Amino acid sequence: MHWRAIIRLFGILLLIYSLSFLTSVATALIYADGQWQIFTLSLILWAAFGAMLWFPNRNEHSELSVREGFLIVALFWAVLGVVGATPFLLGLHLSFTDAVFESISGFTTTGATVIVGLDRLPPSILYHRQQIQWLGGMGVIVLAVAVLPLMGVGGMQLYRAESSGVTKHEKPTPRIAETARVLWTLYFGLTAICALAFWAAGMSVFDAIGHAFTTVATGGFSTHDDSLGYFDSPMIEFIAIVFMLAGGVNFAIHFIAWRKLDPRAYTSDPEVRVYGLIFLGASLFIAASLYWAGAYESIWESLRYAAFQVASILTSTGFGTAVFADWPLHVPLVLVMLSFIGGCGGSTAGGIKVLRIMLLAKMGVRQLFQLAHPQALTVVKIGGRPVEERILFSVWGFYVLYIVTALLLTVAMMAAGLDLESAFGAVVATINLMGPGLGEVASNFTTVDPLVKWLAVFSMLAGRLEIFTLLILFLPSYWRN
Amino acid sequence: MHWRAIIRLFGILLLIYSLSFLTSVATALIYADGQWQIFTLSLILWAAFGAMLWFPNRNEHSELSVREGFLIVALFWAVLGVVGATPFLLGLHLSFTDAVFESISGFTTTGATVIVGLDRLPPSILYHRQQIQWLGGMGVIVLAVAVLPLMGVGGMQLYRAESSGVTKHEKPTPRIAETARVLWTLYFGLTAICALAFWAAGMSVFDAIGHAFTTVATGGFSTHDDSLGYFDSPMIEFIAIVFMLAGGVNFAIHFIAWRKLDPRAYTSDPEVRVYGLIFLGASLFIAASLYWAGAYESIWESLRYAAFQVASILTSTGFGTAVFADWPLHVPLVLVMLSFIGGCGGSTAGGIKVLRIMLLAKMGVRQLFQLAHPQALTVVKIGGRPVEERILFSVWGFYVLYIVTALLLTVAMMAAGLDLESAFGAVVATINLMGPGLGEVASNFTTVDPLVKWLAVFSMLAGRLEIFTLLILFLPSYWRN
Ligand SMILES: [K+]
Ligand SMILES: [K+]
Repeated sequence: MHWRAIIRLFGILLLIYSLSFLTSVATALIYADGQWQIFTLSLILWAAFGAMLWFPNRNEHSELSVREGFLIVALFWAVLGVVGATPFLLGLHLSFTDAVFESISGFTTTGATVIVGLDRLPPSILYHRQQIQWLGGMGVIVLAVAVLPLMGVGGMQLYRAESSGVTKHEKPTPRIAETARVLWTLYFGLTAICALAFWAAGMSVFDAIGHAFTTVATGGFSTHDDSLGYFDSPMIEFIAIVFMLAGGVNFAIHFIAWRKLDPRAYTSDPEVRVYGLIFLGASLFIAASLYWAGAYESIWESLRYAAFQVASILTSTGFGTAVFADWPLHVPLVLVMLSFIGGCGGSTAGGIKVLRIMLLAKMGVRQLFQLAHPQALTVVKIGGRPVEERILFSVWGFYVLYIVTALLLTVAMMAAGLDLESAFGAVVATINLMGPGLGEVASNFTTVDPLVKWLAVFSMLAGRLEIFTLLILFLPSYWRN
Repeated sequence: MHWRAIIRLFGILLLIYSLSFLTSVATALIYADGQWQIFTLSLILWAAFGAMLWFPNRNEHSELSVREGFLIVALFWAVLGVVGATPFLLGLHLSFTDAVFESISGFTTTGATVIVGLDRLPPSILYHRQQIQWLGGMGVIVLAVAVLPLMGVGGMQLYRAESSGVTKHEKPTPRIAETARVLWTLYFGLTAICALAFWAAGMSVFDAIGHAFTTVATGGFSTHDDSLGYFDSPMIEFIAIVFMLAGGVNFAIHFIAWRKLDPRAYTSDPEVRVYGLIFLGASLFIAASLYWAGAYESIWESLRYAAFQVASILTSTGFGTAVFADWPLHVPLVLVMLSFIGGCGGSTAGGIKVLRIMLLAKMGVRQLFQLAHPQALTVVKIGGRPVEERILFSVWGFYVLYIVTALLLTVAMMAAGLDLESAFGAVVATINLMGPGLGEVASNFTTVDPLVKWLAVFSMLAGRLEIFTLLILFLPSYWRN
């Protein structure tokens, strides 16, 4: 391990990141909510610490290896989790556990919360909370489009950026930097359009920016306890659906569509196509279920709530508008399945990802077909191109570790005192980066034991880091030589 | 399809099977319970029908293909399900749905029931019910040891009988016949010893034979509503644990151990070893959980109930002794997981099977290891021998179809009116061939909608036929040319 180079990197990271507190200082001054000292203190504290890490190691320029990449990526989310927690500790006087939970929930774009009474919080703290998710989304699109495919995590090799033409560099580091620049431009653009649309639809400037941050990041933090249900506006919900779905699309595909100014980039991508079909199919199925069960009076109202909920959960955003109490009972089960599917790879969404689900399903059908026709030679294809067996095994390994991690976390949360429904709900909500759970954690994690909160933190990190990147650090042989 | 050869085969099958009603006639006469006419009628009815199928096709000796094998195997369980239902229709006046449910539950060795008040039933009907499970167990060990490995269902090629030395024939049909003879001798022997042990431990002759039938078959039907809890005897529970575990072991391994008179056949088989470790590990974990939560006063009592429940559920027998109400809540979740694991391949147990779980787990770990060490060439091995990638894909396909079938059945059962817990419990109980479920179906299926019962019948058949053998019949291309 090139420890000093890694420390230098985190020094720079903290220096850059501490600048993000400036926008919160500005918000505090504009709204005169008395929090500007908190954010200034956070800025100075972390900038100083960053400088302390960077300065003694400023000449350590060694190229970092793929193996070191796993540690850096995991540390990135863990360290920024602690940094982002500072204003919650200093400003809201949350416990260390609660502050870190809230911050990690933000950076991983999960959106689970331990805070009730959002509507009464100082605006600058609310703004900070929304911004954390937006920054977490920035981190993850670069991770998912540029870093994980290089590392070959869980079949992500399929997303090699070269094939999408996002970048033309040969060497990893400049390639990552160039990809990041392109992706962030797109991300910023999408967020700006989303904020304008929300504002035009009737939100305040503050709410429009805050919700645009967490919609495009598929994060789901809101500035109101009632989430988007607070606005009760079909137009706002429609805008949210469009931008949640956009946040759940591979950003490399956004790049192609934008460069060629051709929306067919979306329809010609096999993963985006299936993602769209899942959204449409699930929305229609649930709308029909709701209408048939008499939960809503008109088919349009059923469709409105169904489409919003499907988009919110499939993209792992976790915004809420409806009360589930009257909904027929198989609907939540279908929603839980959608949450495990998640969005596209290379997006801000959580879950197993549509492409992996496609490969898993194709494998199942292939085996059935092969049994009926033993002579036939069948290859699994995506978009007409055969997928290497090596990648299929990667996806399988990913799936197995994902499910085993989810099951063990459920057992652990039950041992820590949750009932089955709440434990399962908490795991679904966190490992899939969705936010709201079931049972005791249906709307927030306020009442649970600190141990459950730390298990949830682990679960969110595991989900965000595509399991492998976190679990590999527990492999003794990872640390050898 | 050689339809006439298939019809001839089922004619012979019905002729032979109808003889099994003779033992029920004898039981009815011995206990003078007034049911002997019912069983005599059933015998004549089905023997006549069998003769009608056989006689016009008696010269159709064409060798049947592997492809036809799938249809024959599926029909075997479906047809015998209807045949076994006759005494429930005629003697107990159950509805057609209930009678078929009870009979299919028997033949698939599931053990779910729609009958309450077992203790008051005529002995001959009770005997018939126990015998159905025993016969179903006979069917499945031949299916699992000799037929499915030939067909290559879901990685079962790993169990090719040649390698175990059970048979030396080159051609499939005589090989299956020879294997069947050997396996049935063993199965009969194990059942006889189990019956003697139950009798020596205090059961009546009737109960001893009846429970030996359903213990070795890992079926779980009992002659009492309180199942084995009726006897409240640690010795009977210990005997049941031993013979349930024996029923869950690959019968090819029993054969080797018996021929060589060497118990090391068990300890040297990698699947049996892991199966034993899962039993020990889960028993200790649950005993510790029970003791720690104060559900029982002594560690021994905790161990007694834990070991029995683990053996009962891991082998998918489904006998009950304890009331779960006081148990800590993570225990049922662990039991559900054990139920999905199931016993060894080539046994009477249900579930995914230990060997497949081993391959799934090894794949997950291999991918994690490969990520940390991209240069290392890693092969998945079982017992030191590398497993072909083709077989790994088979297992994956099996797993995917298993889980998707379970999820879709859960949704369907909820749409048919069950709550989430009951629907999931019903699917776990039936697809894993366990018997008792959760919620509304915790002890029986009496109160559920007929649609739920038919879904459960499908689920039991899917579980017993290792998913593939049933689903392949729904593939349009299976039926072409
Ligand atoms: K979220
Ligand atoms: K059973």
